[in-house]
Amino acid sequence: MTPTSATSLPRVLVVGAGGTLGRAVVAELAQRHDVIAASRTEGDVRIDLTDPASIRAALEKIGRLDAIVCTAGKVPFKPLADMTAELYASGLDDKLMGQVNLVLAGRGHLADGGSITLIGGILAERFIRSGTSASMVNGALESFVKAAAIELPRGLRINLVSPNVFAESMPDYAPFFRGFEPVPVARAALAYGRSVEGAETGQVYRVF
Amino acid sequence: MTPTSATSLPRVLVVGAGGTLGRAVVAELAQRHDVIAASRTEGDVRIDLTDPASIRAALEKIGRLDAIVCTAGKVPFKPLADMTAELYASGLDDKLMGQVNLVLAGRGHLADGGSITLIGGILAERFIRSGTSASMVNGALESFVKAAAIELPRGLRINLVSPNVFAESMPDYAPFFRGFEPVPVARAALAYGRSVEGAETGQVYRVF
Repeated sequence: MTPTSATSLPRVLVVGAGGTLGRAVVAELAQRHDVIAASRTEGDVRIDLTDPASIRAALEKIGRLDAIVCTAGKVPFKPLADMTAELYASGLDDKLMGQVNLVLAGRGHLADGGSITLIGGILAERFIRSGTSASMVNGALESFVKAAAIELPRGLRINLVSPNVFAESMPDYAPFFRGFEPVPVARAALAYGRSVEGAETGQVYRVF
Repeated sequence: MTPTSATSLPRVLVVGAGGTLGRAVVAELAQRHDVIAASRTEGDVRIDLTDPASIRAALEKIGRLDAIVCTAGKVPFKPLADMTAELYASGLDDKLMGQVNLVLAGRGHLADGGSITLIGGILAERFIRSGTSASMVNGALESFVKAAAIELPRGLRINLVSPNVFAESMPDYAPFFRGFEPVPVARAALAYGRSVEGAETGQVYRVF
């Protein structure tokens, strides 16, 4: 028996696989995993994180998984003076509850000892103009992941990757992140590997 | 001119004034403030945090304020296995967005240099069974307050009080908080005084 065999690669669902970060995570994990790529508009299955029914339908179709990772989630960037309850709700519905719904729907599809890895971000603990929604959502995710980790059954694990602004996103985000040190998405992809292939739970993997 | 005069006491709105913590905060602040007490069912004005229209109506009636403090906010305590999107939404709508709506509506009613003090809690950073909603909401509040602090205009300040479980609440909450050291609400009330009468902003006042 060899240590690994092509027919027994662990199965990982990557949500947001079509995005800048998602593609890097797929490239990293595909070296040692059977990757099922999900995104809103392409990939092996369609998942819209803001539509719980699409999450449940995709999971039913996929069957048993060893890991679920999410690289997707949107929040609005607006000056506090222009923020409204509706704008905060859009960030909570998408990046926060979209990922939490993925946890709620996905946990039952994971094999014993399986893992869930979500995406947060540096704005949970570093603060910028126009960042109140991102900070709110990323702060919620950090505490949620730590709290959920101690209640998951069957050795299931959950971690959060919290990256700095991505070098690849600087064309769009540079004005918000002056003075920050951008990180390549490949570094964040390594953190996903550490979460999926490691044994830790309830951790925030800072990629700063 | 004396250092203080009865006719120029600073005006503070206490939301949740009828609750266990609210009464202690009123007792602390009333020594040096003109307190306007608000709660859902009693007090000088009625405010239901889950109803933005009730917040706006009360603020219009009250006029200019020097400080707004909130001592109210509910989250569900349920095992992760029993949590649903709807239960998470109830905590987000009440303790998180209720208080954020108070900030959005209240900032325009504050005098230059005025302050807002919100209520979070220890479960942002210490974790218990049945606490995922509380952790999510309190984590969101910590990062939101720090982010909002750097964008508020006119010297307006915002802080968060993050208490341990209250000694006065142990009849209801003891089973969730075994091993925690309960704090009297009077200690948390002092933290409100420190926020309102001090000069700091973007701080989390831990009452552990």
